[in-house]
Amino acid sequence: MSTDAANSDTPALTHFDTDGQAHMVDVGAKAETRRVAVATGRILMLPDTFGMIRAGTARKGDVLGIARIAAIQASKRTSELIPLCHPLPLTRVAVEFALEEGAQEGSEHAVRCTVTAETVGRTGVEMEALTAVNVGLLTIYDMCKAVDRGMRMEGIRLLEKLGGKSGHWQA
Amino acid sequence: MSTDAANSDTPALTHFDTDGQAHMVDVGAKAETRRVAVATGRILMLPDTFGMIRAGTARKGDVLGIARIAAIQASKRTSELIPLCHPLPLTRVAVEFALEEGAQEGSEHAVRCTVTAETVGRTGVEMEALTAVNVGLLTIYDMCKAVDRGMRMEGIRLLEKLGGKSGHWQA
Amino acid sequence: MSTDAANSDTPALTHFDTDGQAHMVDVGAKAETRRVAVATGRILMLPDTFGMIRAGTARKGDVLGIARIAAIQASKRTSELIPLCHPLPLTRVAVEFALEEGAQEGSEHAVRCTVTAETVGRTGVEMEALTAVNVGLLTIYDMCKAVDRGMRMEGIRLLEKLGGKSGHWQA
Amino acid sequence: MSTDAANSDTPALTHFDTDGQAHMVDVGAKAETRRVAVATGRILMLPDTFGMIRAGTARKGDVLGIARIAAIQASKRTSELIPLCHPLPLTRVAVEFALEEGAQEGSEHAVRCTVTAETVGRTGVEMEALTAVNVGLLTIYDMCKAVDRGMRMEGIRLLEKLGGKSGHWQA
Amino acid sequence: MSTDAANSDTPALTHFDTDGQAHMVDVGAKAETRRVAVATGRILMLPDTFGMIRAGTARKGDVLGIARIAAIQASKRTSELIPLCHPLPLTRVAVEFALEEGAQEGSEHAVRCTVTAETVGRTGVEMEALTAVNVGLLTIYDMCKAVDRGMRMEGIRLLEKLGGKSGHWQA
Amino acid sequence: MSTDAANSDTPALTHFDTDGQAHMVDVGAKAETRRVAVATGRILMLPDTFGMIRAGTARKGDVLGIARIAAIQASKRTSELIPLCHPLPLTRVAVEFALEEGAQEGSEHAVRCTVTAETVGRTGVEMEALTAVNVGLLTIYDMCKAVDRGMRMEGIRLLEKLGGKSGHWQA
Repeated sequence: MSTDAANSDTPALTHFDTDGQAHMVDVGAKAETRRVAVATGRILMLPDTFGMIRAGTARKGDVLGIARIAAIQASKRTSELIPLCHPLPLTRVAVEFALEEGAQEGSEHAVRCTVTAETVGRTGVEMEALTAVNVGLLTIYDMCKAVDRGMRMEGIRLLEKLGGKSGHWQA
Repeated sequence: MSTDAANSDTPALTHFDTDGQAHMVDVGAKAETRRVAVATGRILMLPDTFGMIRAGTARKGDVLGIARIAAIQASKRTSELIPLCHPLPLTRVAVEFALEEGAQEGSEHAVRCTVTAETVGRTGVEMEALTAVNVGLLTIYDMCKAVDRGMRMEGIRLLEKLGGKSGHWQA
Repeated sequence: MSTDAANSDTPALTHFDTDGQAHMVDVGAKAETRRVAVATGRILMLPDTFGMIRAGTARKGDVLGIARIAAIQASKRTSELIPLCHPLPLTRVAVEFALEEGAQEGSEHAVRCTVTAETVGRTGVEMEALTAVNVGLLTIYDMCKAVDRGMRMEGIRLLEKLGGKSGHWQA
Repeated sequence: MSTDAANSDTPALTHFDTDGQAHMVDVGAKAETRRVAVATGRILMLPDTFGMIRAGTARKGDVLGIARIAAIQASKRTSELIPLCHPLPLTRVAVEFALEEGAQEGSEHAVRCTVTAETVGRTGVEMEALTAVNVGLLTIYDMCKAVDRGMRMEGIRLLEKLGGKSGHWQA
Repeated sequence: MSTDAANSDTPALTHFDTDGQAHMVDVGAKAETRRVAVATGRILMLPDTFGMIRAGTARKGDVLGIARIAAIQASKRTSELIPLCHPLPLTRVAVEFALEEGAQEGSEHAVRCTVTAETVGRTGVEMEALTAVNVGLLTIYDMCKAVDRGMRMEGIRLLEKLGGKSGHWQA
Repeated sequence: MSTDAANSDTPALTHFDTDGQAHMVDVGAKAETRRVAVATGRILMLPDTFGMIRAGTARKGDVLGIARIAAIQASKRTSELIPLCHPLPLTRVAVEFALEEGAQEGSEHAVRCTVTAETVGRTGVEMEALTAVNVGLLTIYDMCKAVDRGMRMEGIRLLEKLGGKSGHWQA
């Protein structure tokens, strides 16, 4: 019966209590350990847009430099944006961009954003890394939208996490 | 020559001045008109995760209800997150979720988030709509990550915009 | 039948759409008019606590001066705190405190906080006035809690609103 | 003499230094211990409003689900709202709502909001619990104000605190 | 007599009401006009620090690019930082840095930050321009402090304002 | 050769990685120790403005009381304002103002703001102390600007820091 199935499934969503109400999960008894998370994602764009971004990284009009700052700043505000996230003091945030030229005729160009976030704390930093990736890509969109409204973000996901009870995870 | 090409391209990125330095573009002379933007995106997940979300919308453990609030709240903070965005008073934000079951054996399940944002102002609200989509999807990830770390966000893009000098645009 | 009753009632809660989902209501078509709201509330306390606050307003240890600043600053962040509130530019915030001595032997002492908020905009400022009252009283609690943990806030409510389609309302 | 009396009283308000100037108290030498605080408060309303909220919790138009999220998010921003509060990393926030039907003919209906906040830190979390209660009730007001502007918040107070030098306290 | 002098002077500080209590001044009746403010300031540093910043602007390690973004973002949050500032929608923010080499042997090197802020609104944007200058200079300090803790900020002031009842002002 | 010089210099700016890209430096391996920073700065003003502020501190119109609160609140938001700052939980913030009367005929009057910030953490609190000084002075400017637009901020700098690997430093 679907009700039973749902009941037995629900506990797995730890952000809900036994009555199905949202709460910020108790992590007070967890140890403060080193936590790392790496997330990535891409924004696909027209060849001309790609060319402008590439030109900017070497000289003026530094789209990626600005997107990097936006990504780092957003990571620090993750617990304000994601309702049930615990606030935690990030000890490291690194943002890398890679210019991925479409391999063949007609294939799309993209900028990849990969973020590594770390803390010494009681909860993981997956959301911090993912939030940084999202805002980094959104900032690229914002800066290029006047010339390319059709850009789209793809493949935003966690690559790896370390630390905590659930240990190492890799995509 | 690549330098020349870059020079002639750069002006198109309106977030940079003629020296290639970032600025918040002057919109003081623009008319206050009604602006609408619609953005969308999906988060792909395992069938079990999909089942839990579907169960929650009808009863307890309302993942989508929480993601909707997170999306609306994030839209209001867009100008804090995106460095060169103008602050503007949103007059409407609506967030819709659609449960997209994989059509065939083995195909993926997804939740689609579509946001409509509106203002009466001097700049468009594309970034507000996109930011809301991103944070809505991130919140779903956060709430389900304990059971499905491999979820990924795909196809986040602008669908439509209305208003302003550049007028109507559709993906 | 209760289901029918609920159905016919629900539309009155304008923060939900016709499917019962939360949204930030469309106010784009509303006129920008002057809006005023006045809210009030009290915090009840021990006579000694009351004495300390009264002493401070005239000299050092200015509890109410600090609570006033906290109230004004909170009013500006109302739309960040209340999920479905529209952001709006406040044009005036005034905070008054009144020291209400218990009239008779054994009756309680209180500080009353009354806030007037104004804007020229498309939505009312009731929430801004109420949020300011709440944070003003919370700040008094914070500053005096070391000597009086039992303080309590009472009678926080809207006194009056002006402007908008619904016009004048008085408690 | 009143000056002397005030002088001897003032030190009890720990948020002021010996000159009567506000400061954020030094807690650096305090131990990081588990801290818990429970706060509560009610919002009184018309029977019809009460009926709508009750209908919503079971089906669509989930006022309390939204107020719960607002309460949790507000708890995380307490140190931004309350000027002399120390920032601290919450390890748990739980929000419960109880529907309190007026016991007799003509007595008022209310929704009670009770929040438990926890941290492992150098200062207590009373303000976090109280701020969450306040914003939870304010959100209910916001969502129902179109049908019931006369709602009022009552009895917002601390119920209990645990941890720290001052130890256990109960209302 | 000093008391009388103070009494007659106090009304000139418009952020206080006639009782000497702080308030956010009523600007509801003011016209929405174009407002411009230009502010400037310098940070003085060792020749080596200056050399590093100069090297960075042309190539990697772009201190000024990051400070520019920080300045623009801070300008948008002025009303959160300055208690009695009205929130207003900035329509333009431009940040310029100038490298000022000490003219003579032994004279100090400095980076000058000049910000132009604009709005169409009911109050001026002097505080927005000044806040941006301050945060721009603070960011330079942050990025270079590991090599030069003795840097200092000097001459932060308003250069010019336009618009509003008080009209044009120039330093 | 300037390129080599720049290369060898750049590593000293720890906010950049070996490729010259900004990052939030890894402090995860640093010990949590007590950190103190003291910063100072002045705002220079006309004698009349100075007189108003002095009058206010003793009676109504308390400019410095408000600036003190603004400074404390700003210190808590340093990591939001300064892009590469680590978030950290302040354990103490104290703000002192000194009225510095121009010593001789024609010399300028000033208010000095000195802030002491402390934490028990992995990074220093220099930026927190400096940010508080800046916002304290900006608030004085805001409150007095209607009578004295020419005020200027001077000599904002670090006075002392304690704790961490680099140990004690004094200006």
